[in-house]
Amino acid sequence: MNAEIIAVGSELLLGQIANTNAQYISEQLAEAGVNVYYHTSVGDNPVRLKQAIEVARGRADLLIFTGGLGPTKDDLTKETIAAALGTGLSMDEEALRSIKEYFNRTNRAMTPNNEKQALILKGSEVLKNEHGMAPGMFFKKGGRSYMLLPGPPSEMRPMFSKYGIPAILHTLKRKEIIYSRVLRFFGIGEAQLETELEELIDTQTNPTIAPLAGDGEVTIRMTAKHGSKEVAGELLDNLEEKILSIAGDYFYGYDHDSLVEVAMRSMKEKGFTLSCAESLTGGLFQSEITAQPGASEVLKGGVVCYQDEVKKNVLSVNENTLKLHSAVSEQCAIELAENVRRLFSSDIGISFTGVAGPEDHYGKKAGTVWIGLSINGQDTKAFLLNLAGGRNANRKRTAKYGWHYLLKELT
Amino acid sequence: MNAEIIAVGSELLLGQIANTNAQYISEQLAEAGVNVYYHTSVGDNPVRLKQAIEVARGRADLLIFTGGLGPTKDDLTKETIAAALGTGLSMDEEALRSIKEYFNRTNRAMTPNNEKQALILKGSEVLKNEHGMAPGMFFKKGGRSYMLLPGPPSEMRPMFSKYGIPAILHTLKRKEIIYSRVLRFFGIGEAQLETELEELIDTQTNPTIAPLAGDGEVTIRMTAKHGSKEVAGELLDNLEEKILSIAGDYFYGYDHDSLVEVAMRSMKEKGFTLSCAESLTGGLFQSEITAQPGASEVLKGGVVCYQDEVKKNVLSVNENTLKLHSAVSEQCAIELAENVRRLFSSDIGISFTGVAGPEDHYGKKAGTVWIGLSINGQDTKAFLLNLAGGRNANRKRTAKYGWHYLLKELT
Repeated sequence: MNAEIIAVGSELLLGQIANTNAQYISEQLAEAGVNVYYHTSVGDNPVRLKQAIEVARGRADLLIFTGGLGPTKDDLTKETIAAALGTGLSMDEEALRSIKEYFNRTNRAMTPNNEKQALILKGSEVLKNEHGMAPGMFFKKGGRSYMLLPGPPSEMRPMFSKYGIPAILHTLKRKEIIYSRVLRFFGIGEAQLETELEELIDTQTNPTIAPLAGDGEVTIRMTAKHGSKEVAGELLDNLEEKILSIAGDYFYGYDHDSLVEVAMRSMKEKGFTLSCAESLTGGLFQSEITAQPGASEVLKGGVVCYQDEVKKNVLSVNENTLKLHSAVSEQCAIELAENVRRLFSSDIGISFTGVAGPEDHYGKKAGTVWIGLSINGQDTKAFLLNLAGGRNANRKRTAKYGWHYLLKELT
Repeated sequence: MNAEIIAVGSELLLGQIANTNAQYISEQLAEAGVNVYYHTSVGDNPVRLKQAIEVARGRADLLIFTGGLGPTKDDLTKETIAAALGTGLSMDEEALRSIKEYFNRTNRAMTPNNEKQALILKGSEVLKNEHGMAPGMFFKKGGRSYMLLPGPPSEMRPMFSKYGIPAILHTLKRKEIIYSRVLRFFGIGEAQLETELEELIDTQTNPTIAPLAGDGEVTIRMTAKHGSKEVAGELLDNLEEKILSIAGDYFYGYDHDSLVEVAMRSMKEKGFTLSCAESLTGGLFQSEITAQPGASEVLKGGVVCYQDEVKKNVLSVNENTLKLHSAVSEQCAIELAENVRRLFSSDIGISFTGVAGPEDHYGKKAGTVWIGLSINGQDTKAFLLNLAGGRNANRKRTAKYGWHYLLKELT
């Protein structure tokens, strides 16, 4: 079975949004062992959508549509597919009830155009929308399978993983399955990692090895094909051992792990609490941990000390430190880390002070950053970064290095 | 002229990255008045790439390719296009020289496979790569135009805007141009806005009106076609006036404006400074303003008060407030806003306290949020939200409402 993902929406062709739905669906299909051969995006235009359907029917077994299921006049995915395949539409009473409930729950008045969302293609299995109104659909016709999903990612993602993937797997009844595992590295470039692993990459066939760089991290995707899940798991285990014997120093986690999650797990296991003093990162570092459920077990809080006056008045940085060394200095980073740890009574204090850019500041180049790390019972350390990105790339990279150094010191 | 953007790379079909190149190129083309009718993504596979080229030649005048120009074996965009169109490849001496220089500059050894990057399609205009090695190309054949761009966004973006767009505009010699303006709304749903504007939408032809929802906001794109920039501007002005006479209460800005930028501009104009007390948002609100250059003129800083003990010890919330009303209460929001304003000596103090979820807490439902707002010389106000999203959707929506209320109170 091979799939094509067709995204419908003029906002894609105008560049107002990126097609992240195709990425999400592709990743899930890759894990399920379904090949995706094409992505297509087309506007809210029935003639061109019809043409895209015809092209896709000529080259794919599974056509997955996203978008165009909403209440407005330019939402016409269902209607166009119905016309292209010669199928009718009918009102789904359960979907209609659930749309009415949605309006009740959110205390809003339901306008008549919302009823259109409960129309489904005749003979299709309804995929429930638990985060919005428009239901999804799955049906087979002429030897092909068709799935329709809503456009908003917050609705599409849970629907696809909870109802879409199981419906596809049920159709497949496949014997040989593809198993993937991703290894995640920080602090090494893609080319360097690829060079170190060159021999392995060239000689491996099952599992295969695919490195990918992004966001200052490098990942290695190992992919094994086998009829037995256990054997595939062993193949992946063996290869992982070989890779980590070469590049284990930079390895930090698996699959969808992130530096912040792994660091948070490590602090939880040790029963450590954290507080933060953020200058150039301006709340970003804390925002990354508070995005995780359970952050309150670890994070006590922190101070965004965007001004020197706040570093002095709220976080008690010595006036002489600021005068002699400036806020962007090893000394200031150390005082911030120690003082925030004391103010919040936490086991760990971490601080970030630097020049995000675009302009230089304090006589320091944009990209100059000090990270201070004070851990209960250990000497306070400071780490210097010389970053070369733009303002926000530097802020994000700084936060990543923060998690990286914190994790290194904990393990 | 209508365009199709063809992205080449198996990493797209595996869902390892999103096709942000298509978004960038589409946005630039929309501004240049070139219609994009399709996006296609295809893997590093010459047979399927050739098929994609054939489909696109049947429906587009301008084919823009991204990716597959690199040095490795799976980079085969040039070779496949050459075969599909019956064109040859030749070594471009200037590109080769520039690749050699690139290796010299970055102190790396050049491997022989890098020479392949200097091969260009015969007869094509070279688009210089100022941020990497593989040059871009532009050529015409059989009444169609073809452009090849590298895959990494850091190379593709500057090349396309500096050399790609001018090459396309030169080809067009167009008289009538498309002018767009986006109006941005917050606090109203898409269906409600469309219902209020229904008559306008149905009767308008030039400019056209297209609503789009996303991230709790609704935008309206007005698009006018005209030979004169001035007349098009007047058409847009007239329509904007009509739209705002109906829905002006929810309007906050234009085009790429964001709530945070508009609120920041408003504070700058008034010479106001800001400080923040963040519980459930955990640094996110401050991180949004510190992402903007010039934030230091407005933001003094703030406290992430993730624990009740921090609200009490660092931000002096009354112990009785926490006991009698809990941290998620109007009283606590008001004290946090007033106390953070005092601690940081700012003109405005804003606070966020609530239950992000997924679990209920303090006897309050997940999604219950209080925002406190203390402005110098005015009574402190508090606003209650009842949000229905997941943990991070609730945190992001809360931050948006923070900017929204702040902006409303300032204007």
